[in-house]
Amino acid sequence: MINNKYVYKFFSQENCEGNAEMKKLLGGKGANLTQMTSLGLPIPPGFIISTSACLHFLENNEEYPEGLSEQIDKALAALEETNGKKLGGDNDPLLVSVRSGAAISMPGMMDTILNLGLNDISVEGLAKETNNERFAYDSYRRLIYMYGDVVMGLSKRHFEIELEKMKKEYGVESDTDIPTEGLKKLVEINKNLYKEKLGESFPQNPKEQLNKSIRAVFRSWNTKRAIDYRNHQGIPHDLGTAVNIQTMVYGNMGNDSATGVAFTRNPSNGDRTLYGEYLINAQGEDVVAGIRTPQPIEELTKIMPEVYNQLFEVSETLEKLYHDMQDMEFTIQQGKMYILQTRNGKRTGVAAGKIAYDLVIEGVISKEEAIMRIQPSDVDNCLFPSVNWPEINPNAPIQQIKHEMESSVIGSGLAAGAAAASGKAYFDADRAKDATDRGDDVILVRVETTPEDFHGMAASQGILTMKGGLTSHAAIVARQIGKACIVGSERGGIFIDIEKTELHGKGMIIREGEWITIDGTDGFVYKGKLPTTPASLPEGMTKILEWCDNIAKISVKANADKPDQFRKALDFGAEGIGLCRTEHMFFDNIPLVRDMILAKTEKERQEAVDKLEPLQQADFEGLFEVAEGKPVIIRLIDPPLHEFLPSIEELITEIYEERLEGKSEDMLKDKYELLEVVKSMHEQNPMLGLRGCRLGITLQMVTVMQSEAIFRAAAKVKKKGKDVMPEIMVPLIGFSKEFQHQKEIVDKVAKQVMEEEDIEFDYLVGTMIEVPRAALTAGEIAGGENGAQFFSFGTNDLHQMALGFSRDDTGSLIARYLELDIIADDPFVTIDQPGVGRLMKMCVDEGKQANPNLEIGICGEQGGELKSIDFCYRIGLDYVSCSPYRVPVARLAAAQATIKKENE
Amino acid sequence: MINNKYVYKFFSQENCEGNAEMKKLLGGKGANLTQMTSLGLPIPPGFIISTSACLHFLENNEEYPEGLSEQIDKALAALEETNGKKLGGDNDPLLVSVRSGAAISMPGMMDTILNLGLNDISVEGLAKETNNERFAYDSYRRLIYMYGDVVMGLSKRHFEIELEKMKKEYGVESDTDIPTEGLKKLVEINKNLYKEKLGESFPQNPKEQLNKSIRAVFRSWNTKRAIDYRNHQGIPHDLGTAVNIQTMVYGNMGNDSATGVAFTRNPSNGDRTLYGEYLINAQGEDVVAGIRTPQPIEELTKIMPEVYNQLFEVSETLEKLYHDMQDMEFTIQQGKMYILQTRNGKRTGVAAGKIAYDLVIEGVISKEEAIMRIQPSDVDNCLFPSVNWPEINPNAPIQQIKHEMESSVIGSGLAAGAAAASGKAYFDADRAKDATDRGDDVILVRVETTPEDFHGMAASQGILTMKGGLTSHAAIVARQIGKACIVGSERGGIFIDIEKTELHGKGMIIREGEWITIDGTDGFVYKGKLPTTPASLPEGMTKILEWCDNIAKISVKANADKPDQFRKALDFGAEGIGLCRTEHMFFDNIPLVRDMILAKTEKERQEAVDKLEPLQQADFEGLFEVAEGKPVIIRLIDPPLHEFLPSIEELITEIYEERLEGKSEDMLKDKYELLEVVKSMHEQNPMLGLRGCRLGITLQMVTVMQSEAIFRAAAKVKKKGKDVMPEIMVPLIGFSKEFQHQKEIVDKVAKQVMEEEDIEFDYLVGTMIEVPRAALTAGEIAGGENGAQFFSFGTNDLHQMALGFSRDDTGSLIARYLELDIIADDPFVTIDQPGVGRLMKMCVDEGKQANPNLEIGICGEQGGELKSIDFCYRIGLDYVSCSPYRVPVARLAAAQATIKKENE
Repeated sequence: MINNKYVYKFFSQENCEGNAEMKKLLGGKGANLTQMTSLGLPIPPGFIISTSACLHFLENNEEYPEGLSEQIDKALAALEETNGKKLGGDNDPLLVSVRSGAAISMPGMMDTILNLGLNDISVEGLAKETNNERFAYDSYRRLIYMYGDVVMGLSKRHFEIELEKMKKEYGVESDTDIPTEGLKKLVEINKNLYKEKLGESFPQNPKEQLNKSIRAVFRSWNTKRAIDYRNHQGIPHDLGTAVNIQTMVYGNMGNDSATGVAFTRNPSNGDRTLYGEYLINAQGEDVVAGIRTPQPIEELTKIMPEVYNQLFEVSETLEKLYHDMQDMEFTIQQGKMYILQTRNGKRTGVAAGKIAYDLVIEGVISKEEAIMRIQPSDVDNCLFPSVNWPEINPNAPIQQIKHEMESSVIGSGLAAGAAAASGKAYFDADRAKDATDRGDDVILVRVETTPEDFHGMAASQGILTMKGGLTSHAAIVARQIGKACIVGSERGGIFIDIEKTELHGKGMIIREGEWITIDGTDGFVYKGKLPTTPASLPEGMTKILEWCDNIAKISVKANADKPDQFRKALDFGAEGIGLCRTEHMFFDNIPLVRDMILAKTEKERQEAVDKLEPLQQADFEGLFEVAEGKPVIIRLIDPPLHEFLPSIEELITEIYEERLEGKSEDMLKDKYELLEVVKSMHEQNPMLGLRGCRLGITLQMVTVMQSEAIFRAAAKVKKKGKDVMPEIMVPLIGFSKEFQHQKEIVDKVAKQVMEEEDIEFDYLVGTMIEVPRAALTAGEIAGGENGAQFFSFGTNDLHQMALGFSRDDTGSLIARYLELDIIADDPFVTIDQPGVGRLMKMCVDEGKQANPNLEIGICGEQGGELKSIDFCYRIGLDYVSCSPYRVPVARLAAAQATIKKENE
Repeated sequence: MINNKYVYKFFSQENCEGNAEMKKLLGGKGANLTQMTSLGLPIPPGFIISTSACLHFLENNEEYPEGLSEQIDKALAALEETNGKKLGGDNDPLLVSVRSGAAISMPGMMDTILNLGLNDISVEGLAKETNNERFAYDSYRRLIYMYGDVVMGLSKRHFEIELEKMKKEYGVESDTDIPTEGLKKLVEINKNLYKEKLGESFPQNPKEQLNKSIRAVFRSWNTKRAIDYRNHQGIPHDLGTAVNIQTMVYGNMGNDSATGVAFTRNPSNGDRTLYGEYLINAQGEDVVAGIRTPQPIEELTKIMPEVYNQLFEVSETLEKLYHDMQDMEFTIQQGKMYILQTRNGKRTGVAAGKIAYDLVIEGVISKEEAIMRIQPSDVDNCLFPSVNWPEINPNAPIQQIKHEMESSVIGSGLAAGAAAASGKAYFDADRAKDATDRGDDVILVRVETTPEDFHGMAASQGILTMKGGLTSHAAIVARQIGKACIVGSERGGIFIDIEKTELHGKGMIIREGEWITIDGTDGFVYKGKLPTTPASLPEGMTKILEWCDNIAKISVKANADKPDQFRKALDFGAEGIGLCRTEHMFFDNIPLVRDMILAKTEKERQEAVDKLEPLQQADFEGLFEVAEGKPVIIRLIDPPLHEFLPSIEELITEIYEERLEGKSEDMLKDKYELLEVVKSMHEQNPMLGLRGCRLGITLQMVTVMQSEAIFRAAAKVKKKGKDVMPEIMVPLIGFSKEFQHQKEIVDKVAKQVMEEEDIEFDYLVGTMIEVPRAALTAGEIAGGENGAQFFSFGTNDLHQMALGFSRDDTGSLIARYLELDIIADDPFVTIDQPGVGRLMKMCVDEGKQANPNLEIGICGEQGGELKSIDFCYRIGLDYVSCSPYRVPVARLAAAQATIKKENE
């Protein structure tokens, strides 16, 4: 007998024939409706036709199973009785929605049909009941259109053409501006169109409408779109869909009616208060259209206190049901409230942290659940200001703000620094610095940045570049110094006219000194000064991150070069420095470095190097002071020396410009000589040239000098009573003997400094793993007496070499590959697991086998990214290191990775 | 009792106490001496003190074992009797040499002591006997010096200072110019020095000399150098050394005495005749010093026919003993001939082939032994002319030629094209071409070459560059077109003064148009026109290479782009084309390619591409015609498009030069525009940029055009009745989907062409493996329906990426690393087995697992190198492909690899 039941009612808490467990039979949506109804929530009543009816229908030549018609009729009659209205009745008609609903949520199936039951007569009843003739005819013309499209398969296009004609006729732009008269005409036109195209009239019989709609829903299970989707997702084809038939309710039935949205907690700050807005005598669309301004939800306490209380109770029930903050749509129809929809509510990062934290304290969820629920973007959202904030500010007219924002977009690029900032556009680092010195906020706009732009970048509020990817110079520096940054915006429609010092995009022109706003969280560039919200790491998030540290089995260090960066990183929870680049110490002293490079004798060269030593030592002292015994991994100089010289192009241009001014070749002898040196040092592929340990091996005095500066600094700080833990990292190792060569020098210097300074301290010597060969011979590099004591994956270079992708040159190629689905992710954002990841795993396994004490981490950009951190944890890394502003996200990801693995 | 025997005599065939098997007891040298003596060879008589005596000595506080002294005394007495002379006797003294000799050949042990037995009296006897006072005193002063150094541990430096003083005193430069009087003085000075430093006189008692020398040899087993060497080589420390005491014989004892060298076969052409030279009444040094001109060995038949016959018999015996051609040193002392030394003789490549072939035919060695005996340099030596040929021309005064050659060396570089060539130096490709058009032989001299120098390279006899390594453009092209080539000679002391068009080195200056000679077999550059020998692949070598093909289990293809190259490769035994680069087809049509690149619309671009199609098709037809059904692997375009445009530097220079000439910016608008394009296409690291399949994916029309050209050519040739086997190779694959993307295009074009041309042919689509990620994901790339049908390792790029070594930029780094022993081999010459090799093995294993029909080869430069070919065979490659002139060597290496593996 139970097999013959196909229809399930959800009329009220007492009269409800399903529950949450019955997804297979009732579909996900249906089971949910019955669950909420049986919990006493005010759900508009309705009934569900089961998936078993659908399957019978599809398997039996589109015949209803025995008894289904009768069961539908009975359920409908009961629904009419409950509502006190007849389906499509002449006055005050019962109208229903019809929706598909499978066990597994599935796009590609039948669209919703609303207001089913309207016909030439009931439309008048609806008009009268809502006292809104325009609304009634608008609903009717839409029903014909939807029914024709969804049930009868008539192309939408036909109806849309007519709609456009009508707008032209009235000289209006928006659908909402068509007068009632026009909508009435459209009803007639749509009916004629329907008849003409289908050879039959739009059915005036509401039961016929219902019957045909049910059949259409059944059939939609087997549309090509639906089958393709199931094939793709591996969903079985024998589930079938249920049909949900639910009473329509209206918020525009007078001043005792209303429509609104409410969050169960404040989505902006997470406070536990009902939060939302409503409009009296309105339908949902009116809120969305922004024609009238809604009232804050608190106002409801004054005019409908009972409804407010009911809403509050509902919110409590829903949170208990879903274990999360809910975003509810509700309608008040003549004093009675209905919940139309509820879902987990969107929230700011701040709110996400507070809500998750509070839910733990309230005993609703576990710490692990709280951690798993936080998104990296939530953390970023706390840390960095962003532009799209107003979107969820209930006091602002949302649609209007949206429109304003959209019309001021100049273009977009890659979101490279997760923050928004406004400032006056300057196209040159020096001019940008000057402007900030005058007190202006500045956005530095460059085709791409080089180390020589650093002062301008540091002075600006944000950086915008035309070229380069997420690991270009601009992007890396911006992330490290915490600046808003968008890179590679050339392909987002923006370009610089260097000569005119103008920025062009979407037909707009920004001249130097004019305001722009960039949002590094989503990559949009705006004309003008848009409001941005300030950054903070609020208490809720802070607490959750502390839980993360307790749970995570992989620790988080920071990439930091200077004491202030390092201090910031420690504030954000870093456990030490995973990568201190020493390049800046050279870039800060370019004249000395050039003396070193251009020296004509070894003696001259040694003198220049000797002058650099105390400067570097002072820098290291600053780091050790801040570290207070935490490990500080210092990488020896990495970039090729020609980076410290002007480029060939620059020099040639300078020389010729001076010659055009009348200078003779003789007068420019020095420049010509410098040009010869620069040419002789030129490299075709500097990434694969004389850099990293190759410098330290061919120019040993630099390794000696840097080691001495590090160890003398360590000695000095230790003498002050602070612990020190220097770890020297040799870059670009490919051969174990390269490492041994450098380690011998470092060890010798360490011994000498300890003797001279009469103090002892621990230190380690390790290596970057960035050359594929190093990963392939990890056992050799880590093994033996002179083996590496730690490894740190330099995943930027490792990806560049293993994939053959120069990150400076392949930005647009990667974008194209993502479009073509050749790659699933940008490898400079998330580790390429099948390729580079495999190499990393081999390296970890064999490195640790050769030296069980080997500590292994990652210091490439991917070290701050969720999926990559998860992978690093899985293959056995001990820590990740990332830029200071990525540290909080990394702590979250480290904990999530640990939890995920333990739950497998 | 046998345990107490420590001394073994080798006096004559009848009186000889050892054999070849007794290496452990007699040492290698000693066992050999006894073996030759017992075969009746005329070896100067002597005796051996066994290693067991040495061990006893070392283990027992430097005491001789019981009986050793007596045994030595008895042996010495017998030796004196045999020679009819007394050791160090007053008149006509017996003199001996003392040498160490362990079971395993071991440098770092005791040096030889010659003429032991000389003292103040016997030196006069020697002078009288040899009628050469100068010789006697020179021998004596050397004995004091050697004995002081080797036996007593006195620093050589003391003696050398005195020698230098003496040369100054006589105002001479060479030791040989010191007169007898000076040598006599030196004897006195050395003796005084000896006494002063050691507190005792140089021993006048010959037996004391002998006794102390024996003890010194024993002790030398435990010097630090010897112990270190054994540790390094894993040689046991308990073997001990034997001591060889052998009668000195002299060729300067009158006109019935002589000294000479003889080869058992002609080392120049391999003919089976005695070949050599001798000097009457001379010692070995006289021949070496080149003071007198030796006589050809045939002359001996006239003056000492018996000796000649004996020498001939000896040569037969030695060849039978050693199974190879021997290089013998002999001395005739008063009519009696002695063999002083014999070893496998050096020979030309031609001779190596002939001798190995003849020895097989004579039944002395097997085919496999013959193959294993041929060196790659032997093959090269046949194929390519070389400069150092005169060294073994017996009719030329060898020392004189040596001196001439040495004094005309300007410097050296990396031997990049295994051939020598002479020509007039030209510093520009156009001028080089003009000169050859005028009929001159030319060497093109460039800082480095680019594709635009090709016409100059092709026209020249050879190419010399200052920069770049063995896989620089110059080196690769030279090997491919078979030109003499030396690259990277800057670090060999050569540089170009571009402005003056001069070549500088070792203080010499070569002006444009002056003759130079370069030897690509050893890297030396000479001033002037030196004689070089022409190339040939003679019969013996040809036969051996045919045996190789039958034995080898890995086949050899050629890298060839044009029909004539391909024909050459087939002549050399290639089994098809393993790599046809299509770049030249673009470089040959630069204007069209530029139209394609600079096109402003897709239509314009397509038009330019369409014009290229027939040109490429014609090129492919030529290859298929020559191939006659053999596989032709064609690689789609690989280099980045900016290679077809001028460089930024060139353009800026041009623009400014024209502006200096008075042109306005407006007049140069086109050039400025081109400059903008070139700048926008500039890449930081072009090797890792937009090239290879990345071009074909972003600019699909190029893949379409190239596929069409290939298939139309195939159709046309097949219609003529010839078989065709095109194999299309997609370069720079890193992701399986890249390959699938390109394969789909190729397959579509193939289908279309076959339909349109109404003909069917087979073809394959495969990929280069050059990006490390491709090797790491080989299973994915080779697997599935759309997987690769063949792999070809592009080991140049694979090494560049996996090692992070740009071959254009790391030439001097690699040289430094070789010096520092950081790497054992240049990875661009021989595969880096622990790193890249491991990656290759993974790739082969997983590729073949995914697709058992997958054919795998190598087309990088290393594909023609012995060790690399051996490795390729071991990891399961099916073929190697190399430049045409490497094909013969590769065939040899393929067979050697097969034989080696089968003998394991």
